[in-house]
Amino acid sequence: MLIIGEKINGMFKNVREAIQSRNKVVIQELAKKQIECGAQVLDINTGPASINPIEDMEWLVKTVREVTDAPLAIDTTKADVMRHGLELAGEGSFINSTSGDREKLDIFLPMAKEFNAKVIALTMTKSGVPLTAEGRLEVASNIVAAAIEYSIDTQNLYIDAVILPVNVAQDHARAVLQTIRDCKILCDPPPKTILGLSNVSQGTSVRSLIDRTFLVLALANGLDAAILNPLDEELMNAMVTAELLLGKMLYCDSFLEAYKKMR
Amino acid sequence: MLIIGEKINGMFKNVREAIQSRNKVVIQELAKKQIECGAQVLDINTGPASINPIEDMEWLVKTVREVTDAPLAIDTTKADVMRHGLELAGEGSFINSTSGDREKLDIFLPMAKEFNAKVIALTMTKSGVPLTAEGRLEVASNIVAAAIEYSIDTQNLYIDAVILPVNVAQDHARAVLQTIRDCKILCDPPPKTILGLSNVSQGTSVRSLIDRTFLVLALANGLDAAILNPLDEELMNAMVTAELLLGKMLYCDSFLEAYKKMR
Repeated sequence: MLIIGEKINGMFKNVREAIQSRNKVVIQELAKKQIECGAQVLDINTGPASINPIEDMEWLVKTVREVTDAPLAIDTTKADVMRHGLELAGEGSFINSTSGDREKLDIFLPMAKEFNAKVIALTMTKSGVPLTAEGRLEVASNIVAAAIEYSIDTQNLYIDAVILPVNVAQDHARAVLQTIRDCKILCDPPPKTILGLSNVSQGTSVRSLIDRTFLVLALANGLDAAILNPLDEELMNAMVTAELLLGKMLYCDSFLEAYKKMR
Repeated sequence: MLIIGEKINGMFKNVREAIQSRNKVVIQELAKKQIECGAQVLDINTGPASINPIEDMEWLVKTVREVTDAPLAIDTTKADVMRHGLELAGEGSFINSTSGDREKLDIFLPMAKEFNAKVIALTMTKSGVPLTAEGRLEVASNIVAAAIEYSIDTQNLYIDAVILPVNVAQDHARAVLQTIRDCKILCDPPPKTILGLSNVSQGTSVRSLIDRTFLVLALANGLDAAILNPLDEELMNAMVTAELLLGKMLYCDSFLEAYKKMR
């Protein structure tokens, strides 16, 4: 599966402070460490406290680019910040994210075409996140239709079924798993599916256990990608073992180590 | 899910020795400990080294019955050992197991009817374990048809899709998951599904990790029951968390402890 490292996000205190003080070392260490632990793409988010998000995004992208050529996921809802991030990040980038609202799709899908970027699209609209799998799939089908209109290859479209914290919205977990499965019959070739994983465990006391269990459940339903914390070793081991059991990598006695060396 | 504790099995050295020396304490401690950790049913197997399996089964069942009324799964391929075990174990017992061979079904299904026992049936025949999900489902459908002939309630029938060790038969893991899913469309109400879980990790170096990951994958596909080691705390935590995320128990902050108290 494709792993997008979540750690460079201004919602985390250490990153917020590094952005404010322009401390490159903190950001570059996070970039290198996440790749070392298995991230193939790095999420870049200036955080909600950013007063100058365009400048902060520019600094973050340039700082990360000094240590890695890995693709970046530009994580913002603001079109101008997204455009500036994509200009600096180069090809292979991800737009993270658009909602299913038509006015958002009409901004971000042409931008994806212009920059040859991949698109993460959330199955939510101004009305919120649908409670049911059927509601989510309806938003997903609108997104896929819009992507086809804009000549976006559906294999470059990543549908995020929006997992909510299990402590406040337990019913959503099953709906998300069902949506991941159902997305595969929306079109041929189908869109990819992705999860912003750690949201499932927000506010709970056993976050890593909930994260890795939900990831395995999602992989059983065909999940293609996740935004997650690659520094969580138990999470990564669960992921590798699930991929092994699902036949996505060949068994060898040291399969956990083999996975690390493969990267 | 229904949990059958696997520990009272003569293939384990401590149990083999306890059977040979008629050491009740070892067996009774294993019985109590497994129930304390979440087993609802206890598997009873004299082991392959047993010279007098009928006597050994009688001693095991009577020894366990001194400390618990929990249902027992009489685990033998021998009809006379099975019959004697069922006579002593009482109602609610499991026959573990019959294969899909007609001559075995013609022995064990009438026995299930006679003792009002539940039946675990393996999707294998004299020819071995089918490689594919389709092959396993064909055996399962023959088993279901035979059960209906013998007026066995299909909800008392547990189909075991026979997981093989991932280190020698990696392809089988996906076939088993698919079979678990497909069994649900064999009839209405469908048969239950069960796994002899620890077989998946035989001969590997990270047994608990492989066991718990495969269990979560199987739960995502609708698994109803498993024969497993309830003393493996990480396995039990993964199971409880998967059930939580699949909506089979309600969330509370201390859901792991709540599950333990519920039993």
